[in-house]
Amino acid sequence: MGNEYDRDEFFLQYASMPRSEQGLSAAGEWHQLKPLFEPVKGKRILDLGCGYGWHCRYAVQQGAVEALGIDISQKMLNQAEKLTHEEGITYRLCGIEEYEYPAGRWDFVVSNLALHYVADIQWVFQQVARTLTPKGVFLFNIEHPTFTAGVGQDWVYDAQGRPQYWPIDDYFISGERKTHFLGCEVTKQHHTLTQILMGLLRCGFVLEAVEEAQPSQEMLSLPGMKDELRRPMMLLVKARIEK
Amino acid sequence: MGNEYDRDEFFLQYASMPRSEQGLSAAGEWHQLKPLFEPVKGKRILDLGCGYGWHCRYAVQQGAVEALGIDISQKMLNQAEKLTHEEGITYRLCGIEEYEYPAGRWDFVVSNLALHYVADIQWVFQQVARTLTPKGVFLFNIEHPTFTAGVGQDWVYDAQGRPQYWPIDDYFISGERKTHFLGCEVTKQHHTLTQILMGLLRCGFVLEAVEEAQPSQEMLSLPGMKDELRRPMMLLVKARIEK
Repeated sequence: MGNEYDRDEFFLQYASMPRSEQGLSAAGEWHQLKPLFEPVKGKRILDLGCGYGWHCRYAVQQGAVEALGIDISQKMLNQAEKLTHEEGITYRLCGIEEYEYPAGRWDFVVSNLALHYVADIQWVFQQVARTLTPKGVFLFNIEHPTFTAGVGQDWVYDAQGRPQYWPIDDYFISGERKTHFLGCEVTKQHHTLTQILMGLLRCGFVLEAVEEAQPSQEMLSLPGMKDELRRPMMLLVKARIEK
Repeated sequence: MGNEYDRDEFFLQYASMPRSEQGLSAAGEWHQLKPLFEPVKGKRILDLGCGYGWHCRYAVQQGAVEALGIDISQKMLNQAEKLTHEEGITYRLCGIEEYEYPAGRWDFVVSNLALHYVADIQWVFQQVARTLTPKGVFLFNIEHPTFTAGVGQDWVYDAQGRPQYWPIDDYFISGERKTHFLGCEVTKQHHTLTQILMGLLRCGFVLEAVEEAQPSQEMLSLPGMKDELRRPMMLLVKARIEK
């Protein structure tokens, strides 16, 4: 990805999102991601695109002995450092496509809302398969293919400005999508469902969960949240390596 | 499903589709479904929604010793009988939701473009899990959730009548969808990707393939076929029961 997260105006916007101010409990996907989290006691965790480090801290609070969070945004990592008081967590300025993925180094690899910035997702799957210990788990949440194939990744609105439907196009043409997020132009990568799931299967992963994120009952009362039932935005995948 | 396939005008239209006149080779999904077919030599096959019986005949031609095709359309089954000269194939007028699914009876269950007429897909998954022999395989092709969540299951067209984009809505509200197919109103059932894949995992299936059907290179030259790259229409799933 380009490093949009380090642009001042983008970062300011990001910093004021509920998930940035309040952490996991304010993230729409957490009520589904949390039950998929491995028991981490005594485990070593790698977080790809760690952002503010919420998942690293959660893992260590649950008993993980080591966590490494990588991210390409120094601003995000500065904030992560500020928020972190736990032992055993390291943050590193490093892209998901640059990390060295040492063989058999990590028991659990997690990635939340970062892989849709990665062009060659198949390569990342191969690296994760290699860096996991036997029976290790890869848990990630990626923007849903129906979302990334959205035309301009936005609704079509009716005359009153209300979302009318979610338009998709060029689904099987994977790759770069220009979109607007938090007032900036952001480049994302569209991957088909086939590329995501067959990509994992081809690397020797066994699929343990494939879930689309839906707002929880409590979140449905928040403004605009009912529209989240109209098209899937995020795809959660839990996969275990067989080796 | 309602039995639209037995209505005269619908059946006439269906009978003139390339897949009806020419069989598997004219079906857009076959080039992807065929490689997922189990080696069937000596196996017993159940086909849910067998239609003209193409998959039953293919299985027996490949060495299967027994095939049962069930369908709720007598007109389809009449045609299946006419086309069938192989030994070992039985056709039965029976709904997917009515069949008795004897325990450990079948080695391989196949279903092509029928499960999007079934309301309680989870129940069917349970029955298929039961009727399969140990390590038996369930291979199916269902209309893609992005397709069944399509508004009216049709494109939005531009002023020149060209498909502009594929609109989706109410994705997480699964269930009945009224749609037009071959000039008739047809009721289909929308299931989310989560319901399909987690439904299988919950029944003890291991996912071996999850593929979206794309036209083959040769098919792309047919009129309108390039639009099939713009949104996914079918989802192919191969799942093995662990028992």
